[in-house]
Amino acid sequence: MSDYSELPVLPMSIRFDHAAGTLSPAGPTLTRRMSDLEGLFLDQDAWLSALADGDPIVYSVVSSRVPEIDRELPQSITTIQPGVTGGEFWMTKGHQHPNHQGEIYLGISGSGGLLMFDGTSTNWVDMTPGTIGYIPPGWAHRSVNVGKEPYSFLAVYPGGAGHDYGWVLEHGLGQRVCTENDGVVFRDYFTGARP
Amino acid sequence: MSDYSELPVLPMSIRFDHAAGTLSPAGPTLTRRMSDLEGLFLDQDAWLSALADGDPIVYSVVSSRVPEIDRELPQSITTIQPGVTGGEFWMTKGHQHPNHQGEIYLGISGSGGLLMFDGTSTNWVDMTPGTIGYIPPGWAHRSVNVGKEPYSFLAVYPGGAGHDYGWVLEHGLGQRVCTENDGVVFRDYFTGARP
Repeated sequence: MSDYSELPVLPMSIRFDHAAGTLSPAGPTLTRRMSDLEGLFLDQDAWLSALADGDPIVYSVVSSRVPEIDRELPQSITTIQPGVTGGEFWMTKGHQHPNHQGEIYLGISGSGGLLMFDGTSTNWVDMTPGTIGYIPPGWAHRSVNVGKEPYSFLAVYPGGAGHDYGWVLEHGLGQRVCTENDGVVFRDYFTGARP
Repeated sequence: MSDYSELPVLPMSIRFDHAAGTLSPAGPTLTRRMSDLEGLFLDQDAWLSALADGDPIVYSVVSSRVPEIDRELPQSITTIQPGVTGGEFWMTKGHQHPNHQGEIYLGISGSGGLLMFDGTSTNWVDMTPGTIGYIPPGWAHRSVNVGKEPYSFLAVYPGGAGHDYGWVLEHGLGQRVCTENDGVVFRDYFTGARP
């Protein structure tokens, strides 16, 4: 038994297939449907319509087998489907790390963005294949698909950072990412007004 | 001023050019020459000869601008030149994280390997483009170029993990990665014997 390492996590080799957007061996997969995004789109009626229209999958997250525990550094691939509900691009729920720690996203395919909010300032990083978006400690974050194809990215994050989804419901994310005349526009998170 | 984030690290976009093996904007670059690898090759005479023969660059590490401080998640690209000294493939110094935390390496180009040692067990991950090598907390690690071209990989690591190079001088890394008949063989770290 080593004085330095602690079981049960052993060294491992994980195949990252850039073209297919997969990690193998893979761990748990999370699927988020429209019904899981309650309270997150500004237009509640549009959300209800989408819900009634088959409750589509909005995004999925495939994790590696590195566990989400303190001191480990797990990875996952998120794929957001293209879509618009009430003028807002489809997106992840967004979260804050209760244990403030940095995270990186690496764009794999499609065209997306990384919206960050620290309770005061909003920041947006355009995400294309090969872009690393850096999320500093204490910045809540959401990913958005602004294209017409699925948008995928690799996330690498400290296993003990945690996920607080309630923070976004309470504080918002500063802005919303909407479509207008086939372009991307930002609107105030709570009022929907142009900033 | 935000209640959640702390300056000076703001969100940022970093361009990861897979083909060129660059991060831009880039931060500090570290260059390790043969003279920086004192005491690390088993064959001291061969090391001295290589030193006298121009003290070549063995590897370089280009970092992003995310600082190496607690809670941040910096990245770097390491490129190890191809070469053999005293039968051992060229390699990084190797280190242990004094603050035990996990790290990932993503193979970019060339053919290498990730040698890990927890003081008792040794582990080896073949690294090719698209391989993620996972280094669990408490496993010292070294990268080795076993090919004829430069070997490059992207590292993502907790900024507060630290680098203890003395650990390797004291404990070794279990095994050495050597060439024999154009292949890769492993030898005992301290005696050079076949394991």
